[in-house]
Amino acid sequence: MGITIEVNKKSRELRVAEPESVSALQNGHYGVMRSGVIHLSPEEALYLMDIRNAKCYDEKGNELLFNDLARHLYSKKLMARYFTYKDWKDRGLMVRPVEEAKGNYGKNPMKKYPSGKFTSPKYSIEGVLFPDDLVTIIDDESVGRELYENYWFGQFGSYKAEQRGKLSKLDIYETLFMLKHCGLHLKNSNERKIRRYVKGLRSDLPYMYEVYEDWRLRGFILKTGFKFGTHFRVYFPKASPTKTGEDWVHSRHVIHVFPRRNRMLISEWARAIRVAHSVRKTFILAIPGAKRKAKAKLDFLLYHRKNGGVETPGKDDPTFVMLSLSEEEHIGGGELAEAIEAAKKLGLDLILAISDRETSVTYYRVRRIELPGSRYEYYEIEWEQP
Amino acid sequence: MGITIEVNKKSRELRVAEPESVSALQNGHYGVMRSGVIHLSPEEALYLMDIRNAKCYDEKGNELLFNDLARHLYSKKLMARYFTYKDWKDRGLMVRPVEEAKGNYGKNPMKKYPSGKFTSPKYSIEGVLFPDDLVTIIDDESVGRELYENYWFGQFGSYKAEQRGKLSKLDIYETLFMLKHCGLHLKNSNERKIRRYVKGLRSDLPYMYEVYEDWRLRGFILKTGFKFGTHFRVYFPKASPTKTGEDWVHSRHVIHVFPRRNRMLISEWARAIRVAHSVRKTFILAIPGAKRKAKAKLDFLLYHRKNGGVETPGKDDPTFVMLSLSEEEHIGGGELAEAIEAAKKLGLDLILAISDRETSVTYYRVRRIELPGSRYEYYEIEWEQP
Repeated sequence: MGITIEVNKKSRELRVAEPESVSALQNGHYGVMRSGVIHLSPEEALYLMDIRNAKCYDEKGNELLFNDLARHLYSKKLMARYFTYKDWKDRGLMVRPVEEAKGNYGKNPMKKYPSGKFTSPKYSIEGVLFPDDLVTIIDDESVGRELYENYWFGQFGSYKAEQRGKLSKLDIYETLFMLKHCGLHLKNSNERKIRRYVKGLRSDLPYMYEVYEDWRLRGFILKTGFKFGTHFRVYFPKASPTKTGEDWVHSRHVIHVFPRRNRMLISEWARAIRVAHSVRKTFILAIPGAKRKAKAKLDFLLYHRKNGGVETPGKDDPTFVMLSLSEEEHIGGGELAEAIEAAKKLGLDLILAISDRETSVTYYRVRRIELPGSRYEYYEIEWEQP
Repeated sequence: MGITIEVNKKSRELRVAEPESVSALQNGHYGVMRSGVIHLSPEEALYLMDIRNAKCYDEKGNELLFNDLARHLYSKKLMARYFTYKDWKDRGLMVRPVEEAKGNYGKNPMKKYPSGKFTSPKYSIEGVLFPDDLVTIIDDESVGRELYENYWFGQFGSYKAEQRGKLSKLDIYETLFMLKHCGLHLKNSNERKIRRYVKGLRSDLPYMYEVYEDWRLRGFILKTGFKFGTHFRVYFPKASPTKTGEDWVHSRHVIHVFPRRNRMLISEWARAIRVAHSVRKTFILAIPGAKRKAKAKLDFLLYHRKNGGVETPGKDDPTFVMLSLSEEEHIGGGELAEAIEAAKKLGLDLILAISDRETSVTYYRVRRIELPGSRYEYYEIEWEQP
């Protein structure tokens, strides 16, 4: 026999009272039981109608189809919530409203990165900035070579052919960093001027620099991530461009900078992660900028697999908390930071669930990174197949 | 003996007069010969100084280093031009200023795509639009299934599990298309309202729709390209979601929509191509929107390889024309369209050469596509290793 849902059109309450249905739903961990009646959430009711052939009637006995009920219950992002809820359920896993969360589950540890120290070169360094191209060129061959070999600043000679040519080229982040920390002198500009120029050119550049500086000061080497579709690629402390053969270490991490004040289409944001994933790099998200009020409403508690079965509400703690998103919506850096912050308070890793235009759902897991000595947090974003 | 370049600081002329150097440069196809003297372009002079140890003096006998000369000759994008020029030269290939182009070289054929025809379904179709999520849901199981199986409109049931569930979900482009061409009726909205809503939401959506409609009307099937980091994936006419096994045809093309009025960072633009490339799809660029005045200054004529050697200026025609770009600059859709138009007038495929922050250069080749019956042009963008 099918499940019958009663909707109270005024209170929006969704009830299942028929005893056989009640016990079936209890076993499936649907809804909340109060005095022998199951009270469903909107997503649960819609799911039962869509997948389990449940029927829905209002208090006057009129039948409501899926669209009727969905229109009646409509709230912001209902379909993004519904499609991501459905996908998790379809995998045989449990999901409950985030409102049921109890305290801090302690399942959200920080990943600690190694630390190093930056020591400044002691050369006298002189260059010329070409502002249109955001590049600084150093004429002095021996200084350029030393900066490249010992600090991996700039590109000496030619890319992957250092012996070809004798110039050194610094990008704009290297230029700013060396002006501030290495006594670089520019024949045609200075730090103050460049900072003003760069900020006028692109409002995100100062944030990009902030992230560059933060990692560089901790001994990491950051070079362009252009080939990996990202802002920076990262080498861990002590990496050097002169190591060869077995000593050569590939970069395994890339950094994407998403300032708090920026907004981005979810599809564009996911594209950046996707490239990193396709080249097997760990994608690190940086969210620089001053904290700002932003709304972050988490959506669902997610129960995952465990040895020999699945986690169950009541018996087990949830493992993740989900933010439901859809391909065509925008997300702000501040909003994302708030959601991560809210997940942290629950002691759960955040799962970003993105429903695309075909309602196929992609999951990204957010892990917090501790960069020793930094006052910022960074996040590893991993593609997750639940 | 080294090459000596004389720069006239007033006229900015760059001359090499010493007979031995003159004949060496002639053999290398540098500069223009006039009365026994070679006249160099800025990029040529800088290249000779950087790579061939050439010395440069002004009319008073003062030596100029690379930076001195570059500052003196500085014009917009000089370094982007220089790095891309250098990279092509470093590959042993010839490159000449675009100003030397002579007429139409006839090396820029159009790639013709197959054509089909769209025939409208004859059902009565009713749905509800959820504006926040940009999705329309159809309750009627049999209509939804037929639209999916026979026209590949919407997602019936669940993604990759059509038998699971009975709803059909249309994305916003399918919704708009079916309102206009298939008599879709929405219980809670209409075409005019949605068009206004969508335009207010995101100014690029009407352009996305324009492209969707153009291909759909020619029998192609367009679905979300989310998994491939792009706007649409494309199936050729007669594709169907119900074909299985050997009859199933994967999409091999993706479409990225870059409206003329938009501007984009080169690094973001390249990222979109990179994802498509990593999943072995052909990347198709659409540049919709009204023509607008845009500056497009092409940079260099490129000579490529030929049987048993390389193409040579004077003897052979160039094969490509290059637009020099750098990772951190912006490009407008209009600007790009103008550059493609200018290349078309020369009868050459356009090469977009992008110098990244380490001066490593990536090349993308632009081929024109003819979509039969469309009044728009589209372009295949291919990664090119010269």
